[in-house]
Amino acid sequence: MKIYDIEGFPNPLRVRIALAEKGATDKVEFVPVDVMAGEHRSEAFKAKNPDATVPLLELDDGTCIAQCNAITEYLDGVFDGPSLTGTTPRERALIAMMNLRAESGLMNAVGAYFHHATPGLGPDLETWQCPEWGNKQKEVAVATMAYLDRVLAENAFLAGERFSVADITAFAGLVFADFAKVEIPQTLGNLQAWREKVAARPSVAG
Amino acid sequence: MKIYDIEGFPNPLRVRIALAEKGATDKVEFVPVDVMAGEHRSEAFKAKNPDATVPLLELDDGTCIAQCNAITEYLDGVFDGPSLTGTTPRERALIAMMNLRAESGLMNAVGAYFHHATPGLGPDLETWQCPEWGNKQKEVAVATMAYLDRVLAENAFLAGERFSVADITAFAGLVFADFAKVEIPQTLGNLQAWREKVAARPSVAG
Ligand SMILES: N[C@@H](CCC(=O)N[C@@H](CS)C(=O)NCC(=O)O)C(=O)O
Ligand SMILES: N[C@@H](CCC(=O)N[C@@H](CS)C(=O)NCC(=O)O)C(=O)O
Repeated sequence: MKIYDIEGFPNPLRVRIALAEKGATDKVEFVPVDVMAGEHRSEAFKAKNPDATVPLLELDDGTCIAQCNAITEYLDGVFDGPSLTGTTPRERALIAMMNLRAESGLMNAVGAYFHHATPGLGPDLETWQCPEWGNKQKEVAVATMAYLDRVLAENAFLAGERFSVADITAFAGLVFADFAKVEIPQTLGNLQAWREKVAARPSVAG
Repeated sequence: MKIYDIEGFPNPLRVRIALAEKGATDKVEFVPVDVMAGEHRSEAFKAKNPDATVPLLELDDGTCIAQCNAITEYLDGVFDGPSLTGTTPRERALIAMMNLRAESGLMNAVGAYFHHATPGLGPDLETWQCPEWGNKQKEVAVATMAYLDRVLAENAFLAGERFSVADITAFAGLVFADFAKVEIPQTLGNLQAWREKVAARPSVAG
């Protein structure tokens, strides 16, 4: 299988961490996509992924799976190693919920700030910006950090006592926040401690 | 288990259809939430669901599951009947991808238009609006309809030959589009035909 992505970008990072957690990084061929040159918006790429985003997983039969959550679902199902998406219905639901909160409240909110209220990827790629929306989403991101901090006061990880895809999404969201200069309030001690713990995992520290 | 929701709203509809597909509607106690009076934003409700949204699933042990996708994951896991979220990793991933496209491109895009570029739920609830963003999301919703129409030219349902949660999300998204007066282009014949087929299912037609 192939993963089309670009190193150092926050959504590709999610899938790279998931792969490493499953011990499967070397089972995949990485195909670089020149996002800064707009390659992901070419007709050839959009035929594979109409969302015009990376990462994209292509199976050996040509099936294309876009969206980190869908890709992680696949990787978690086919590779051994600790489950990232949960095993019982209750655990799967809690992980899905926390993952969604981390995605829409942090990852995507930081993304909206970056793409709409800063120069983002530059004028060639940021063809429509709405700064008012972007700035509001920065507030959403900071409020979500505070929420995650409260969750981490009670649990070791975002969806309970086990590391899951929700932790991956939130961790990548914080990496994106650093990049976009959305500050993580110093007062959020649980979030900071959890971040250090996740950063030290072999799947992240390498 | 309990579901906190309000009849006739598009996201609650998603879970109600999922329950009916699983033949499990009578296994659940519905607790009405007075959304128009802002009950979902009360401290009591936010203690259960910090997203301040309906629907919300509460298990008998008090565990609260918010977000339609997480709720559907749970219901699909605990009740018999045809799978809504898929069985093999490949099928699960394709359903997750199409469900996400239907959610972010249609359901949430129509929602953004409704809440930001129309009076939405009224001045008491719509405390911050960004019409420019809302109007852009209407364009996204219409473009997504055209995309779904192309998918349905090749498959009977959005994620292949079987009905899935992706169909539920898109169907509820179109119900929301009608309500918000986002027109479905007449030219999208595959989407219209699929909609009639879904509307005729016992889980929807009742
Ligand atoms: N929700 C998508 C987000 C993917 C995404 O936005 N990826 C970024 C890179 S981090 C991208 O492709 N950006 C291209 C652009 O903004 O044009 C997912 O989960 O894969
Ligand atoms: N992504 C959420 C969306 C839930 C949602 O927005 N529900 C609407 C009712 S359709 C709501 O609670 N609106 C309250 C508000 O806008 O204040 C889910 O999947 O449950």
